[in-house]
Amino acid sequence: MAKLNGFSLPLSPEGKANLLPAPPWHYSGDMLVVEYRTNPDAVIALLPDELEPADDPGAVSIIFADWQSCTDGGRELLDPYHSQYKEAMVFVGAKHQGKPVCRCVYIWVDKDFAMLRGWVQGFPKKHGDVWMTRPVTVGKAGPRLAPGGSFGGTLSVGGRRLAEARVTLTGLSANGPTVNAPPLYNSRHFPSWDSLQPAVYELVNVSGVDKEVSPIWEGTAELALFDSPFEELNALEPQEMLGGYYHSFGYTLHGGKVIEQHKL
Amino acid sequence: MAKLNGFSLPLSPEGKANLLPAPPWHYSGDMLVVEYRTNPDAVIALLPDELEPADDPGAVSIIFADWQSCTDGGRELLDPYHSQYKEAMVFVGAKHQGKPVCRCVYIWVDKDFAMLRGWVQGFPKKHGDVWMTRPVTVGKAGPRLAPGGSFGGTLSVGGRRLAEARVTLTGLSANGPTVNAPPLYNSRHFPSWDSLQPAVYELVNVSGVDKEVSPIWEGTAELALFDSPFEELNALEPQEMLGGYYHSFGYTLHGGKVIEQHKL
Amino acid sequence: MAKLNGFSLPLSPEGKANLLPAPPWHYSGDMLVVEYRTNPDAVIALLPDELEPADDPGAVSIIFADWQSCTDGGRELLDPYHSQYKEAMVFVGAKHQGKPVCRCVYIWVDKDFAMLRGWVQGFPKKHGDVWMTRPVTVGKAGPRLAPGGSFGGTLSVGGRRLAEARVTLTGLSANGPTVNAPPLYNSRHFPSWDSLQPAVYELVNVSGVDKEVSPIWEGTAELALFDSPFEELNALEPQEMLGGYYHSFGYTLHGGKVIEQHKL
Amino acid sequence: MAKLNGFSLPLSPEGKANLLPAPPWHYSGDMLVVEYRTNPDAVIALLPDELEPADDPGAVSIIFADWQSCTDGGRELLDPYHSQYKEAMVFVGAKHQGKPVCRCVYIWVDKDFAMLRGWVQGFPKKHGDVWMTRPVTVGKAGPRLAPGGSFGGTLSVGGRRLAEARVTLTGLSANGPTVNAPPLYNSRHFPSWDSLQPAVYELVNVSGVDKEVSPIWEGTAELALFDSPFEELNALEPQEMLGGYYHSFGYTLHGGKVIEQHKL
Repeated sequence: MAKLNGFSLPLSPEGKANLLPAPPWHYSGDMLVVEYRTNPDAVIALLPDELEPADDPGAVSIIFADWQSCTDGGRELLDPYHSQYKEAMVFVGAKHQGKPVCRCVYIWVDKDFAMLRGWVQGFPKKHGDVWMTRPVTVGKAGPRLAPGGSFGGTLSVGGRRLAEARVTLTGLSANGPTVNAPPLYNSRHFPSWDSLQPAVYELVNVSGVDKEVSPIWEGTAELALFDSPFEELNALEPQEMLGGYYHSFGYTLHGGKVIEQHKL
Repeated sequence: MAKLNGFSLPLSPEGKANLLPAPPWHYSGDMLVVEYRTNPDAVIALLPDELEPADDPGAVSIIFADWQSCTDGGRELLDPYHSQYKEAMVFVGAKHQGKPVCRCVYIWVDKDFAMLRGWVQGFPKKHGDVWMTRPVTVGKAGPRLAPGGSFGGTLSVGGRRLAEARVTLTGLSANGPTVNAPPLYNSRHFPSWDSLQPAVYELVNVSGVDKEVSPIWEGTAELALFDSPFEELNALEPQEMLGGYYHSFGYTLHGGKVIEQHKL
Repeated sequence: MAKLNGFSLPLSPEGKANLLPAPPWHYSGDMLVVEYRTNPDAVIALLPDELEPADDPGAVSIIFADWQSCTDGGRELLDPYHSQYKEAMVFVGAKHQGKPVCRCVYIWVDKDFAMLRGWVQGFPKKHGDVWMTRPVTVGKAGPRLAPGGSFGGTLSVGGRRLAEARVTLTGLSANGPTVNAPPLYNSRHFPSWDSLQPAVYELVNVSGVDKEVSPIWEGTAELALFDSPFEELNALEPQEMLGGYYHSFGYTLHGGKVIEQHKL
Repeated sequence: MAKLNGFSLPLSPEGKANLLPAPPWHYSGDMLVVEYRTNPDAVIALLPDELEPADDPGAVSIIFADWQSCTDGGRELLDPYHSQYKEAMVFVGAKHQGKPVCRCVYIWVDKDFAMLRGWVQGFPKKHGDVWMTRPVTVGKAGPRLAPGGSFGGTLSVGGRRLAEARVTLTGLSANGPTVNAPPLYNSRHFPSWDSLQPAVYELVNVSGVDKEVSPIWEGTAELALFDSPFEELNALEPQEMLGGYYHSFGYTLHGGKVIEQHKL
């Protein structure tokens, strides 16, 4: 690789063309979080053999996020097509060798660089159209970050609505969300070209540094999931709502750790 | 119109299908503003006969805005596809019967309801892809609203970059932007179907109520405009930069006033 | 309007910036047509006072179309972002002073220039995402224009699926579609700025010249319509399928005729 | 992987959620091809160590393609969001162990499933907006597949125009395009999570079966490439045009062969 440069394809002489430059990757985003319980069997059916069910095995977190991200130097920030994206992510709990972990089982995003960056971390990203209400500080066209403020989140894929969430704030939260609690254990997976067995399939830990969190607002939550012939999201339909949250979050990723190879 | 209801097409039995519901329209948005001087002749060439040149005839303001909007009741806010849009707008100064006015000469937006709502107010909206840096409060992926914070704005149409702006904040602003100063005099225009003469062509005043403005940050600004066979924006190329601003703005529109019919 | 030029906003010194250049407008497109009967009351509820019900009052045609269009000279054709668009259109029958007419009651399109061009002709266009299967002549990834070929059409708005159609060809058609039969009587409508009464509201005839039609294939059809808080399309739900068609169509518009002003 | 199913992420209980289902993959598409010579050094700088320069070392082919694709059973064809995509691909020639091969060095596509399917085959896909003129058989809004017919292709990324091509047909082609001649040797590459060295980096052969080609039209060609801070495409700027082509192409992929691991 003397002549060709880049952290990802396309490799190129100057290394400028790669879809995904090397870490560190810096993230700052706003999160609309809905936590609820579904049928535990539906969560357990999404765990690989190496993971056991969580103590609260039906707990699910769906997060709508509006992100900015950049590499060192931050040149993407001034050409914001290359730094901004929205996504909807579904987390569940599990255990690895008896220790609690969380795991992203589904995630949809609206930019290509974020999709590949997700695959590198074991986030199973597909393209989706994500919208979430923004809090405002002036005017009448938006909720305030204050009791009574109502926030909506929607996810659609291919012109089909998959999820609609609503959170109405009640006050500042003492503890914040609980389902999506580190450590995060995702599964990296990349198909082979000469076999139906994957070329890469490994359990990994994704762990950021320099984390910053804004004050966290909490409230009541509603969630509706819809069917699609190309998805299985609505197998996780809500049975009991746990709550909703709105907050901002920043962190940095420097790469991570492979925990073990998945048995095939 | 007994059976058919709606403020705009499509009219329908229940009046739910119209692209644009009746006012009031509420707006809350974030603005990245660049003010500069171009060749005054390029501005004067954009004024209708009823308007005279401004005292500072070459002054131009280009504003990148990230909006939420809604009608009374705010149902659009919880299904944010129907409330959020971004736009890039170009304002110039002029005089009407000796009195200073401002005027939107070009504007691009990324949603259909905002496009029609603009036409109703004499904003000459076309579709464009607009991106602007967001300030953040946590993490390393964005500027702070603080001295040194750098914000980019980009406008593209049909896969052609038309404008790139950059503002670097120096501090809070005592006076705020000056070019885009009310009253706003736009020209409503709608083509005829049986003639090349317009069916509607009238000078109107657009004036909001219940205005709220956040603290206004100011700074230095850069702007590059690019050519396109489908645009004349780059006739307004910068000769002298005046400054840049970042602030939030909210207001409500209840309709407006027709000043005079344009002579044909 | 000495200095400012253009058929539509934005008017500009050179007249290049207008979203919609003056006619003639040339069109060439592929059509997937589904004809069916709904509850006649649902169709009649969509007719203005000046029109009476058709002899077959519940007949509806939904057409998915993949268009190219251009002005004289055809410069848009070589920069196809500016010439290509897809739309889904809903036509019903009616009578005007006892004479059969057809009428577009709903239509969704994916480009701004086509939206405004529709408004000028009384097509009540909103933005929608439209997809339709293309026939192929090589390979296994598409139907042939031949008996057994199956074609799908989908319409979505704001990430909500509104319509799904399917046509399976049985053979060449002797007569072609029947619901969408000229003359086409649409209603032009443009809101006022100082009143809730429209500034323009007139019954118009839209009539092309230089029409060319390919051989027309016909077949069996299915159609599902879905609910949305922003639409009333599914009031036209199918009660009886009449048939489906696939063909290409070309024509040219030079403007049209105003039939009468709608009474307000 | 007893419980979790799928050829790609996301793995799921029923295996319906995966972004990319297992092969076979069927393709039918229309191609606008421009062949030209650039500075040979610019091509050679894009070859990995395992490949040597071609006999015509500066030859480049850029292809704009409008595809339909599906898996066995073809369910994607009736929900065409999931089967249709457009892409722009850049091929160069090379030699492997003295034997001529071709190679895709850059490629942009507008759908997520096609992006991942490309990565599995070593196509270095990124998101791009691609437009290409369609031939028509009726009406005045498009070229005919006949001498004098002019076709445009454009590629944009993030609102920046990267390429504009034009082909004007002169007649049917005896030989068709020559640069993009099989065998196709791409490089599969997938980043690691715990290292800057790739987890997968291998030279592969991509070879379809059941190929079908329409009659091939040829003509004269023009091509303009533009700069971007996120691309190196314009290092391949044209020095000499070789010709242009328009044709349809169909084939099926059942997976492929790994030639060798790239040396790191």
